[in-house]
Amino acid sequence: MNKLYRECFDVIRDISALGAASGVIGWDQETMMPPKAAGARAEQSSVLASIIHEKFTSPKIGRMLRKLSKDGIKLSSIEKANVRETLIDYNKSTCLPKDLVRDLARVGSLAQDAWIKARKKSDFKAFAPWLKEMVKLKRKQAKALGYKGEAYDALLDDYEPGMTTAELDPIVEEVRAGLVPIAKAIRASKEKINSSFLKVSFPEDSQEALCREAMNIVGVDADASRLDRSAHPFCCGIAPTDVRITTRYNARWMPQALYGVMHESGHALYEQGLDMKYYGTPMGEAVSLGIHESQSRLWENIVGRSLPFVQFMLPRMKKLFSNQLKGVKAKDFYRAVNTVKPSMIRVEADEVTYNLHIVMRYEIEKALIAGDIEVRDLPKIWNLKMKEYLGITPKNDAEGILQDTHWASGLFGYFPTYLLGNLYSAQFWAKLSGEVKNIEGKIAKGELAPIRAWLKKNIHHHGRRYSAAELVKRATGKPLAAKFFLDYLSTKYGDIYK
Amino acid sequence: MNKLYRECFDVIRDISALGAASGVIGWDQETMMPPKAAGARAEQSSVLASIIHEKFTSPKIGRMLRKLSKDGIKLSSIEKANVRETLIDYNKSTCLPKDLVRDLARVGSLAQDAWIKARKKSDFKAFAPWLKEMVKLKRKQAKALGYKGEAYDALLDDYEPGMTTAELDPIVEEVRAGLVPIAKAIRASKEKINSSFLKVSFPEDSQEALCREAMNIVGVDADASRLDRSAHPFCCGIAPTDVRITTRYNARWMPQALYGVMHESGHALYEQGLDMKYYGTPMGEAVSLGIHESQSRLWENIVGRSLPFVQFMLPRMKKLFSNQLKGVKAKDFYRAVNTVKPSMIRVEADEVTYNLHIVMRYEIEKALIAGDIEVRDLPKIWNLKMKEYLGITPKNDAEGILQDTHWASGLFGYFPTYLLGNLYSAQFWAKLSGEVKNIEGKIAKGELAPIRAWLKKNIHHHGRRYSAAELVKRATGKPLAAKFFLDYLSTKYGDIYK
Repeated sequence: MNKLYRECFDVIRDISALGAASGVIGWDQETMMPPKAAGARAEQSSVLASIIHEKFTSPKIGRMLRKLSKDGIKLSSIEKANVRETLIDYNKSTCLPKDLVRDLARVGSLAQDAWIKARKKSDFKAFAPWLKEMVKLKRKQAKALGYKGEAYDALLDDYEPGMTTAELDPIVEEVRAGLVPIAKAIRASKEKINSSFLKVSFPEDSQEALCREAMNIVGVDADASRLDRSAHPFCCGIAPTDVRITTRYNARWMPQALYGVMHESGHALYEQGLDMKYYGTPMGEAVSLGIHESQSRLWENIVGRSLPFVQFMLPRMKKLFSNQLKGVKAKDFYRAVNTVKPSMIRVEADEVTYNLHIVMRYEIEKALIAGDIEVRDLPKIWNLKMKEYLGITPKNDAEGILQDTHWASGLFGYFPTYLLGNLYSAQFWAKLSGEVKNIEGKIAKGELAPIRAWLKKNIHHHGRRYSAAELVKRATGKPLAAKFFLDYLSTKYGDIYK
Repeated sequence: MNKLYRECFDVIRDISALGAASGVIGWDQETMMPPKAAGARAEQSSVLASIIHEKFTSPKIGRMLRKLSKDGIKLSSIEKANVRETLIDYNKSTCLPKDLVRDLARVGSLAQDAWIKARKKSDFKAFAPWLKEMVKLKRKQAKALGYKGEAYDALLDDYEPGMTTAELDPIVEEVRAGLVPIAKAIRASKEKINSSFLKVSFPEDSQEALCREAMNIVGVDADASRLDRSAHPFCCGIAPTDVRITTRYNARWMPQALYGVMHESGHALYEQGLDMKYYGTPMGEAVSLGIHESQSRLWENIVGRSLPFVQFMLPRMKKLFSNQLKGVKAKDFYRAVNTVKPSMIRVEADEVTYNLHIVMRYEIEKALIAGDIEVRDLPKIWNLKMKEYLGITPKNDAEGILQDTHWASGLFGYFPTYLLGNLYSAQFWAKLSGEVKNIEGKIAKGELAPIRAWLKKNIHHHGRRYSAAELVKRATGKPLAAKFFLDYLSTKYGDIYK
């Protein structure tokens, strides 16, 4: 191994270990920490973050990485990928002026507070000045990061490296154009789905037992993971050997916890599927948020909400909930967990309408950064789009424009990764289900190892070796396209809603 | 505030925050971490530890502390104490040659492995070379740390700052001389204590509920603490607002968990009683292991195993264990949890014989460091002392000389802090019970706030402002003496064993 490479990546791995420690205390904060500890914990997190930043942005690291990037240095293709990706991270970390970093942190924290209060009172005007300030800062950030096309591209790149509006726009438009009529047809359908049998009481302990069983069936390694409770479900990958997911239990809507765990298990399988050999370097990291989301949506929706999976799980559920599920057939359960109904709130939306929520957020945030629309007009724009795409109108801003925390925290460019996740997942599935023989029969028997193996080999295992776009092409033979997802939805919901 | 002081202690507080983060991941390792995560966790801990060490031992910190120690610098008495104590820590951290630090870590880890194997096979000879090596290193360490009297003093000082063998020897001798006849008299007593009713099945869930109730009654702030399970019970003080204790449950000996939690709750109250204002500086830290242990032993033994406390708790226990405790009277329970019986294993020993276990370890480790005895003679010496002090002889080295992990890890000078804890606790209690009116009546009603308040005001609250010796003198009006503890035992066990 090249001596300089070893020296450089010894430091990078140490910094990653600090990042992992920071991950542990972040997880602890959401799941275990006593309430009064918040103040001291904020201190611990911020000191750790500033040390990680200080170490990673040291000029010495920059010099080593630049030297290693030069032609004539003998490196393996994997080492080259590590140098390339680490240099990208390094440039992103060092290009922002200190003042901007501080302003983003300060305004982000204050805007977050303002948003919480504004949402409570459904008072968009109280939040608007903060959002305006944040948009200004994000434009500055985009400028500092640099971009070729639109400013928004620089922000999008932070979550989905390599993705641009030029590439995304036609895809999003295709999704919108495809979904609006599907959603409309479903609204018009006379097919009535009964899900009342799932709205009875399901004890939390049994729900937790079911969730653990689901994790196990899906194939999350129990000796390298945990399942806990938190206010907002998440997956925290500390190392491939230490992946922690959380869920929350709704005593009167059991599918929330079950499918929440299926979702987070998809994330967990990605983290556990990364190569431990490359732990602490880009080759041992997930490639993008969109690809990560594709794994969670694949397990939650494509596998989890499929009829064969429900057929496999239902007898297991009946062991835990014999009264509640008495007489329920697989088809009943399947239809109940695939009900499509336009809703005001994104996080409660079904597979079909969810993406329309994303499409409108993408359109709005892109226009905001470009300066094509003004913050003060947002509630009006929001409500118009809701009417147009989903056929409903929020009764106030709390259930409209104020529902998500993302913009208050400065997460512009994040929303599209949710949509990309859905598109990627359907495209992966189209290929995967062609290669794994009798996939429905296997799922119906709980034999999910071939699915896991395909995902590990074609996706997880590569870390950040290829860009998301390249990874999709290598795995499926085709560039990203909306077609697979739209086909998947048409077939599935055409059947359910006739 | 002095500008240099502020600059210096801003850094010290940042380092403390890193120490706290390290505390969280250490706690996680013992309680929550998935088994396969051990390798990655070791990496995280060691990187964090080396950064803490590197930051704390920077020459700049030394320069600032030395400047702040000079006459003529205007500091409050609290600031002076912080400078004094931090400089002591700094000197301890910087005086060891790097080679020695590395050797101690290496031999400590290998000796630990060797000890585990040797204990399994009861093969002292396999462990002896490692112990010999460790003793050599500890002598070197003592030399580097510096001492006036015996080399052992330097090691003792690491756990009980300011304590010396010159001060400790006569006290230990008094304890030994006092305890041996008490233990003998109890062995000879015809009084038979029945504890069979505690050796039935106690479901773990109810034990845990009892333990939580006990924590609450003792006054551990539930919003600033946690109770979890671990292989070895411990208390982890991350901040006064974040104190975590653990216990283990023995389904057939309920007092183990209950009194384990009483013990750790004593530690927790000390940590919660530290002044948050001084968090991250010595004024917000516990003064010594001995004083810490005094708090745990006071709550576990002096309060927890007292008749009034049992009178208060028994009706509560009967609510959880109505069958198991049917017909049991407070006096029965009290006698059962105060049974004295010489045992081979220190950690299973009762209040009386426990200290004889410590006395012999103290005598042995002191002689080892002084070179007065040889490692190869240890089993013989051990067994002779067991016979002399406790009247029993181990049937092999596993239950004799090989039972504790301390020496393998290099913890020489640690054992006496257990004994000191008992002595301090009785001396504090003698004073406290004179000042709190009708203390037994209050305990019998579960009114423990006055006890907590006394301890907080006289002990917790002071952090490291005074040395342990000075703290004892200020709190009790007298220097440390064995008399209080011996009196306490004579009265209590004279009554129980007639």
